[in-house]
Amino acid sequence: MSNNLLTHIFNPSDLRQLDEAQLPLVAQELRDFIIGIVAVKEGHLGASLGVVELTIALHYIFNTPEDLLVWDVGHQAYGHKILTDRRTQFHTNRQLGGISGFPKRSESVYDAFGVGHSSTSISAALGMAIASNLKGNFNIQHIAVIGDASIASGMAFEGLNHAGVTDANLLVILNDNAIGIDPSVGALKKYLTAVKEGKNPKQNNMIKSLNFDYSGPIDGNDIFAVLQELKRLKNIKGPKFLHIITTKGKGLKQAEDNQVQYHAPGKFDAATGEIHTKLEENLPPKYQDVFGLTLLDLAKSNEKIIGITPAMPTGSSLKFMMDEFPKRAFDVGIAEQHAVTLSAGMATQGMVVFCNIYSTFLQRAYDQVIHDVALQNLPVIFCLDRAGLVGEDGATHHGVFDLAYLRCIPNMIIYSPLNEIELRNILYTAQFGLSNPIAIRYPRGRGRIINWKQPYEKLEIGKATCIKKGTKIAILSNGTIGNNVTLALSKLNNSEHFAHYDFAFVKPLDDDLLHTICTSFQSLITIEDGSIIGGFGSSIAEFLALHKYTLSINILGIPDVFVEQGTIPELQQFCKLDVNSLVGLFKKLYY
Amino acid sequence: MSNNLLTHIFNPSDLRQLDEAQLPLVAQELRDFIIGIVAVKEGHLGASLGVVELTIALHYIFNTPEDLLVWDVGHQAYGHKILTDRRTQFHTNRQLGGISGFPKRSESVYDAFGVGHSSTSISAALGMAIASNLKGNFNIQHIAVIGDASIASGMAFEGLNHAGVTDANLLVILNDNAIGIDPSVGALKKYLTAVKEGKNPKQNNMIKSLNFDYSGPIDGNDIFAVLQELKRLKNIKGPKFLHIITTKGKGLKQAEDNQVQYHAPGKFDAATGEIHTKLEENLPPKYQDVFGLTLLDLAKSNEKIIGITPAMPTGSSLKFMMDEFPKRAFDVGIAEQHAVTLSAGMATQGMVVFCNIYSTFLQRAYDQVIHDVALQNLPVIFCLDRAGLVGEDGATHHGVFDLAYLRCIPNMIIYSPLNEIELRNILYTAQFGLSNPIAIRYPRGRGRIINWKQPYEKLEIGKATCIKKGTKIAILSNGTIGNNVTLALSKLNNSEHFAHYDFAFVKPLDDDLLHTICTSFQSLITIEDGSIIGGFGSSIAEFLALHKYTLSINILGIPDVFVEQGTIPELQQFCKLDVNSLVGLFKKLYY
Repeated sequence: MSNNLLTHIFNPSDLRQLDEAQLPLVAQELRDFIIGIVAVKEGHLGASLGVVELTIALHYIFNTPEDLLVWDVGHQAYGHKILTDRRTQFHTNRQLGGISGFPKRSESVYDAFGVGHSSTSISAALGMAIASNLKGNFNIQHIAVIGDASIASGMAFEGLNHAGVTDANLLVILNDNAIGIDPSVGALKKYLTAVKEGKNPKQNNMIKSLNFDYSGPIDGNDIFAVLQELKRLKNIKGPKFLHIITTKGKGLKQAEDNQVQYHAPGKFDAATGEIHTKLEENLPPKYQDVFGLTLLDLAKSNEKIIGITPAMPTGSSLKFMMDEFPKRAFDVGIAEQHAVTLSAGMATQGMVVFCNIYSTFLQRAYDQVIHDVALQNLPVIFCLDRAGLVGEDGATHHGVFDLAYLRCIPNMIIYSPLNEIELRNILYTAQFGLSNPIAIRYPRGRGRIINWKQPYEKLEIGKATCIKKGTKIAILSNGTIGNNVTLALSKLNNSEHFAHYDFAFVKPLDDDLLHTICTSFQSLITIEDGSIIGGFGSSIAEFLALHKYTLSINILGIPDVFVEQGTIPELQQFCKLDVNSLVGLFKKLYY
Repeated sequence: MSNNLLTHIFNPSDLRQLDEAQLPLVAQELRDFIIGIVAVKEGHLGASLGVVELTIALHYIFNTPEDLLVWDVGHQAYGHKILTDRRTQFHTNRQLGGISGFPKRSESVYDAFGVGHSSTSISAALGMAIASNLKGNFNIQHIAVIGDASIASGMAFEGLNHAGVTDANLLVILNDNAIGIDPSVGALKKYLTAVKEGKNPKQNNMIKSLNFDYSGPIDGNDIFAVLQELKRLKNIKGPKFLHIITTKGKGLKQAEDNQVQYHAPGKFDAATGEIHTKLEENLPPKYQDVFGLTLLDLAKSNEKIIGITPAMPTGSSLKFMMDEFPKRAFDVGIAEQHAVTLSAGMATQGMVVFCNIYSTFLQRAYDQVIHDVALQNLPVIFCLDRAGLVGEDGATHHGVFDLAYLRCIPNMIIYSPLNEIELRNILYTAQFGLSNPIAIRYPRGRGRIINWKQPYEKLEIGKATCIKKGTKIAILSNGTIGNNVTLALSKLNNSEHFAHYDFAFVKPLDDDLLHTICTSFQSLITIEDGSIIGGFGSSIAEFLALHKYTLSINILGIPDVFVEQGTIPELQQFCKLDVNSLVGLFKKLYY
């Protein structure tokens, strides 16, 4: 791996000292550098490899950070980070206390806007561009780099629709590689493919219809082609749109050939590209697979079952059902709003719809959950993957607000399974058709039960269960964090004083059991992998207020801050939800 | 007003008995009927008048309710309601216990999908269409009627993008009248106008790009033209798109000439069209005008101030600033997601952005508030109009979830003014630039203070105030509902036992004052015009739990149901938040 040029580049002004002819070598070194570090430290790979030439060309041609550059989603911004003051810290990427895996304003002046969720870049850059005009800075350019999967999301269209009638110095660069995390879908993708293939219309009329100065498509992995076009666009005022074609994973053969797998491949051999396969025998399943395989199983005997994912067939494991029942399982692209209301429409016709959305992304469809599903009391089954702390993706991706934002919605059932078997059984229960919508939230990653494929059992809605009896203090847990409670209790030598209840249903609460608990114990502890404010513990505090119970309650959960990235154990420790912290608290409360 | 034909039409099968030649007379009678009732009962007018011919033609040609018809937004569906079993109840429109002002599934089998918020129709109808195919019902048509303001919203694009790659029997009818509530905006509107005017491109290439069978534009107020085209489309499979041009307010001259005013004109003379002007002297101002006029005033001396509204310049009164400072005040169309992230982008450049969104519509931009504003701690000033119970618009429009869904977001300041002066002063305070984003929520309609233009006063963030001293019970109110508390206390003869505090800041709470209160009183009452679950009262219950206070607390607010329509006093009574209910409660608690 030669690093002759890259080691001398600390920020874009160093880059701009080079001759254009040297830039292909920079590109090669940058690619090697990304591969070298991601191979051992893990992270997103394919997206950043695809935009190496674009990244270099943008910082070479434009006057960053005065010209403002917004990367949509941002997992393609590794090259950008490396060229902008963070090469020497890049090995701390996505680690606790390290640099973020996404652009972040507090990290660098070159990160004009924090990203993580998709399709925000056009709106943000347009806001900056309008502000620049108002401040009289007419020569600043404002650049949004957005992929073809992200531009199909409604929010991006809203940004384009506004930008087209302004005189803002906005350059939208469509990085068209025909793939998001999974292959792109939808009519726009089909249309862009026709444009790329030189079929009619050769020029991109759709974008021109929105009043943009359109150019392209050009080869985005040809650095000289990109440089030439950016030079031209740099001095053009108003809204501009450049369509470039790139290859995701460019420069690493396996990553080009297996774009889904190499989106974030885990550890791999930097020289050969081979992924280090972990020995996966006798490990408990991922919750994702419990969802995906159970749904597939249920779908075989219940033909009313529909599966929907907005752009996460692989991540959610809905792909199992998509492969076997392609007519009943849908990837609708990055379109959470549409996914929810589509589900509602199907539910009106009697279908049993499992709409799988990552907790953090359901925030995008909050109104649709309220207005289209809950208000009409349609029994859509929301499966909220990656609920709670998600680990290395960090602050943009933790699914910690869902209990609070869903709990206030009338008609909703909210359920967080304690383990794989509870997840399996609630899916089984829901498929018979509930009388209400339900949100089932479960975490990223592996569970704890190897033999999870137990016979199905129908759950009673709203029923909590006693996991462990005790005498003085009742611990009420919601979701898989309850397993930390069990471990903590196993380390106490006076655990007989502690009872532990699995309140998987946050709504409806098990009022009968709660009354019994409130009249039987000295105090309560609640614990959840979600926001303390407004969440499960808050619901118990409300219950105490309503029924005039005066026993004291400790509410454990995610504090009122945006939690940064780290491993899940590290972040649980930060939130005092790890086993050791619980042991300490339990000892303090009853010694 | 002749009603010879209409009085014999109870549902579409009666309509289908008529000859086509009779339909223009039906149209005239239907128009007269709508005008006659809306003139005295109030409601939405212009939108329904514009689609009279389309409404008749749809029910005449298609086999409703087997063919499924979804009206986007739904305030244009009065004709639909009248032709589908509800003519004789139509005079109860929007009243407590009457029919809803919007299509509603529980009200009629002809209302295929409940609406109210915009841009949901394509997703919902597509869901139905896919379900029909799966059930083998290949001859059912699924129709979404959507306006040109609504189709510009991102969610509609997501629906089109998916529909275009399906074989669903979906007919999207674009009702293009160039106006929503206010005139439509954006690049798409500009493009549609070019199509209408026969300029290039004559055919609507943008829609064709999304793989739809496009036809139009045709004159949507020419019933025979509409009938002819619908007959043709009825038997075409797959996704279809019909572009019709109509005139909002058609048939009432004033409504055609003043489309914004006659969107929902209040009472008017059915014969002349003249609006009954109310004597408005010496009335307290609308909160909307307190916002709009104060912002205008502040903007005169602070050039960093920006105003943003998604499609509600008139309703929000941002129009005052738009008229005087058109370069700094923006109507971005029905694009709440874009509005919020645009605000965030501007805020990064130091602008002081007042983003005015109705509380119920901020649900559409929840993720953007979290991910683009609060996570980056950008000091965007959200002005949440029509917070709390909104009255006749009903369940789809009440802004009662905002306290719960905003409270869990780190960094947010949340403020509900008690009155016009507090609203004015918080706007004044915010314009200096806060260190956090803030949500300022205030209700629809008039306040109570005629001389509201008092000298500005800077507020201390997080500070609550004592309105009235007392000895036994402390009442903590949030927002304008506190005025009901004051009135109720004035009717007690033992009011000395009750203290009343104005907790306008839900976040941050005034901890110091709360500690004093908790150690000085026997019990607490909290009251808010928002969801009991997760709201202000819940925050006080959490505070008590955190600090181990054991005094009892009564949480008053909106119960865990979707509240239907009615006047605000009627709905306050339903929620036991009206003055009489409070008097009764106070007497019961301390007699």
